[in-house]
Amino acid sequence: MPQATSVSASQNNAAHRPAGWGRWGDDDERGALNTLGPAALTRGMACVTEGRSLSLTAPVVPGRGTGAVGRPDPAHFMLRDGGDYAAGHPERGGFAFADDVIQIPTHGVTHFDALSHVWRDGLMYNGHPASAVSSRGARRLGIETAGPVVTRGVLVDLVPAAASWLPGSTSVGVDELRALLDRTGVTLESGDALLVRTGWLEAWQQGQNTDGVWPGLDADCAEWLSEQDLSVLGADNIGVEAYPSSDPECQVPLHLALLRGHGVFFCELMALAELAASGRSTFLFVANPLPVAGGVGGPVCPVAIL
Amino acid sequence: MPQATSVSASQNNAAHRPAGWGRWGDDDERGALNTLGPAALTRGMACVTEGRSLSLTAPVVPGRGTGAVGRPDPAHFMLRDGGDYAAGHPERGGFAFADDVIQIPTHGVTHFDALSHVWRDGLMYNGHPASAVSSRGARRLGIETAGPVVTRGVLVDLVPAAASWLPGSTSVGVDELRALLDRTGVTLESGDALLVRTGWLEAWQQGQNTDGVWPGLDADCAEWLSEQDLSVLGADNIGVEAYPSSDPECQVPLHLALLRGHGVFFCELMALAELAASGRSTFLFVANPLPVAGGVGGPVCPVAIL
Amino acid sequence: MPQATSVSASQNNAAHRPAGWGRWGDDDERGALNTLGPAALTRGMACVTEGRSLSLTAPVVPGRGTGAVGRPDPAHFMLRDGGDYAAGHPERGGFAFADDVIQIPTHGVTHFDALSHVWRDGLMYNGHPASAVSSRGARRLGIETAGPVVTRGVLVDLVPAAASWLPGSTSVGVDELRALLDRTGVTLESGDALLVRTGWLEAWQQGQNTDGVWPGLDADCAEWLSEQDLSVLGADNIGVEAYPSSDPECQVPLHLALLRGHGVFFCELMALAELAASGRSTFLFVANPLPVAGGVGGPVCPVAIL
Amino acid sequence: MPQATSVSASQNNAAHRPAGWGRWGDDDERGALNTLGPAALTRGMACVTEGRSLSLTAPVVPGRGTGAVGRPDPAHFMLRDGGDYAAGHPERGGFAFADDVIQIPTHGVTHFDALSHVWRDGLMYNGHPASAVSSRGARRLGIETAGPVVTRGVLVDLVPAAASWLPGSTSVGVDELRALLDRTGVTLESGDALLVRTGWLEAWQQGQNTDGVWPGLDADCAEWLSEQDLSVLGADNIGVEAYPSSDPECQVPLHLALLRGHGVFFCELMALAELAASGRSTFLFVANPLPVAGGVGGPVCPVAIL
Repeated sequence: MPQATSVSASQNNAAHRPAGWGRWGDDDERGALNTLGPAALTRGMACVTEGRSLSLTAPVVPGRGTGAVGRPDPAHFMLRDGGDYAAGHPERGGFAFADDVIQIPTHGVTHFDALSHVWRDGLMYNGHPASAVSSRGARRLGIETAGPVVTRGVLVDLVPAAASWLPGSTSVGVDELRALLDRTGVTLESGDALLVRTGWLEAWQQGQNTDGVWPGLDADCAEWLSEQDLSVLGADNIGVEAYPSSDPECQVPLHLALLRGHGVFFCELMALAELAASGRSTFLFVANPLPVAGGVGGPVCPVAIL
Repeated sequence: MPQATSVSASQNNAAHRPAGWGRWGDDDERGALNTLGPAALTRGMACVTEGRSLSLTAPVVPGRGTGAVGRPDPAHFMLRDGGDYAAGHPERGGFAFADDVIQIPTHGVTHFDALSHVWRDGLMYNGHPASAVSSRGARRLGIETAGPVVTRGVLVDLVPAAASWLPGSTSVGVDELRALLDRTGVTLESGDALLVRTGWLEAWQQGQNTDGVWPGLDADCAEWLSEQDLSVLGADNIGVEAYPSSDPECQVPLHLALLRGHGVFFCELMALAELAASGRSTFLFVANPLPVAGGVGGPVCPVAIL
Repeated sequence: MPQATSVSASQNNAAHRPAGWGRWGDDDERGALNTLGPAALTRGMACVTEGRSLSLTAPVVPGRGTGAVGRPDPAHFMLRDGGDYAAGHPERGGFAFADDVIQIPTHGVTHFDALSHVWRDGLMYNGHPASAVSSRGARRLGIETAGPVVTRGVLVDLVPAAASWLPGSTSVGVDELRALLDRTGVTLESGDALLVRTGWLEAWQQGQNTDGVWPGLDADCAEWLSEQDLSVLGADNIGVEAYPSSDPECQVPLHLALLRGHGVFFCELMALAELAASGRSTFLFVANPLPVAGGVGGPVCPVAIL
Repeated sequence: MPQATSVSASQNNAAHRPAGWGRWGDDDERGALNTLGPAALTRGMACVTEGRSLSLTAPVVPGRGTGAVGRPDPAHFMLRDGGDYAAGHPERGGFAFADDVIQIPTHGVTHFDALSHVWRDGLMYNGHPASAVSSRGARRLGIETAGPVVTRGVLVDLVPAAASWLPGSTSVGVDELRALLDRTGVTLESGDALLVRTGWLEAWQQGQNTDGVWPGLDADCAEWLSEQDLSVLGADNIGVEAYPSSDPECQVPLHLALLRGHGVFFCELMALAELAASGRSTFLFVANPLPVAGGVGGPVCPVAIL
């Protein structure tokens, strides 16, 4: 197994080695996407009853970032537009066109975290060294290794019926999560994509959020979620799990337990309001992150097929 | 209907008004995506027999543009990486992370053309004025109006069995296109996504292309393709249609006839080699372009479900 | 003289034609920089008595924009850094290096306005049509036409001795400006660079500014300033003149009178505190804006030689 | 003195410690700019005889990079332009304006290398650790520490009278350099800015260069140049010194000897043709690099005053 130079042998011994590492081979870079296949795909297909689709993607609005420190706002630059022709640029060959460029903080729009997004003790998922992530991007675990996700999606709406969103840094613990899931009547299966809604996106779109604080899942969900063998864990907030965390020793315990420990892909800043309003708990989930070579995150436009 | 100030009444009279305008109302901005719905979705679902999926998306490689004049290369910038920690930045709160920014010419990666991408005589699809497209982006027909496409996909491989790709600016006429389609045994239906493969992407990836020249469909396909009532017309080249065009009066006759005339969405720079190699002609096609507010194109990561 | 298509003949008749147009020929693009030459340069040189220099340039701080609507923050991206080597990238050929990219809103750092930055009735300085400024940049009056400015600089500190800066949108009228200038004992001459200090930059650096409001010169300075035949008019705020303006019909009357009317170059967001603290009113002023081909503004790093 | 963690004590012992380190204190970050002051400034002023100025800055042309691997081309994006108004955006408050953004590879235009640009054995100038240069930029030796350079400039034209430029990777050795300097009759003094012309810029502008190869000074100039106590060493090519280098063990021996060893600032990609054509060997040299906080290079627009 590759070793980061700054990691001592003791930090990588059996006691520290997550149970999920090595499950799909020591070189594996796809993590929990290995749970996908005909079974998950067919299970998802079986949920399609209405013949309609919903986008789970938040609009990318130039100049409107999520306020995360150090991340620039999305930007949109026009290379050619209708004004150029209005100003006298002639149409040629019988036509005119517009062209543009976008600049996007990958973790500032609806996106998948690559498995190279977070680590501890210098080691990422499956023991790949963090030193593989340099100014030239991720040589291991880049988002281009993911590929399409086609599976059953399961939605759990964490927002009480009487509320529009969970306030502040409200964290939803494992007991409540399980109770809400039970109410849907769904039993999670290997390869499912579990999506949780906090209402954060709607609050942010209405200017209601405090920078750097958001509601989400509690640290105590880690073990139970690990046992569910999910392919994807998604939410409509910045980090799936609540921030700040209730874990005094780690601010992103679910990322470490699930993404780093088991290779589960986190899908963040999703648009889940319309799906929640549909009343549907299960659906065919299709997502394919933008395969930026070496990207540590990838914009993604997931679709729920109902 | 909105009018561009520079367009005289005579240019917008009945004789010049495409037959497809007004079909879904004078304010419509979704064009041929209006053909989608339960019927198309169900027809696509019926094609799924193997339970597997393929990405039809070309990798986004920083520094490697398609050579189109005036379009910058895709770029990838790291905001935080493993090297920062190796150089002494401390892990905090029990974790470390990487973050990045991407800069993308929307028409230089696998993408949907927005209906605001091309026009003639100052008018875009459905008579929307080109003056709506300014430095602040497209106020009408921006890519954010599209939403997900879930329908039956049909692949026609234009590359002869003995070749790797069509050379130069080879154009495939309507007779050959129909003959190739007939061989697949498929009859196109309203709302289908028709994808044609020229091999251009593989040639480009191997450094074989001349800038500004590519193979594709011939101008004489316009009328027949219009009659097929497609939602999406896709290809693995820069512009679906061959360039230069065989039409002496217009260099992008298919864009004008189909995109401008009927609101058909063009999907370009697709990765179709693996799909072609599968031998499958029909499949469930799922695509959801990145909803950049005001974008005249949108990166998209289509999936074929077989 | 070129004509913008949207400008009627009546708008460009003698009554509307600024007195400064045509002074250096109908094709001139350098405006008031034509006043420069050996006389101005020698006059500036004669001010050098101490043999020291000061930068009049504000630091460019990534992520810290001036809050002007629609302008992105400056950004700084590393292409290669020390962390890459710490993470294992080997030094080659006996050395290592760092490399970077900057992204700058030209009017959001210390800059010269190009003469293509503002206009009225479709006409820029000297009657050049605004239609020459398109998505591809300025075909006329781009900042690359400026070249170096070497002349006498004259500083007038508008901030009272007891204050750190002028508050809000305080405007300093022509009488006060002339009185303050008189106190310095300097008589302006053709080609001088006049710099006025409002303290805005220091206030902004300390987080004291309200977006979109700043102190500066009053609209009533237009005529007198025009008569001074300056090459450059500079300040430490966003727009030299106070905003909002006291002129109910125009928000940037000094830009129109001086930049558009006489081709005077505006230098904005300057750092003038250290120069003001020196007690010097005259000095050799050297500035050479970044010659971006087609730029409507240019970052500049002026130097005062005392 | 700060120590990079990866540097063993033996690498930083007296034998490896450049003679120039510590000359201005162990914390110094301005290097050879400490040689500047009234003497150098006055010596430069004394060269001004004609009262005219020349820009030594190459135009920044969007889409036209120097071909250095991994560096994006300069880009220019318009945020607002004349076309927007032509397309119907109304002038407000009696005026209209244009606005833009530039994106620049700092080492791909006329620039100063920051002292954080190159290093060896993990140590930069004066022993500052390379680990101080991370994805957030240079915490030590960033270009913002430089400030203005006002001194005597000395030009040596390396191009023979009969040629337009030096071909390929021609290297000019110390004997030839000294002979050419002797012909000018100038004796270098402490703090001078020495500029050498190879003609590379003109060749590049005419499309004559091979990527990654350029003419310049030979490795054997290192010792003699170190003795001259220059503040700035400039050239019209990518790296001042010829590339590839004649030194089999190091590809940038002059950078290491002068920039790293003595804190001399390198100014590259200068425009020197007009200055060379003037026949002048000495002049007042004024340069002030863009003070990007943490930048490892800074665009600069030097001026020669004759």
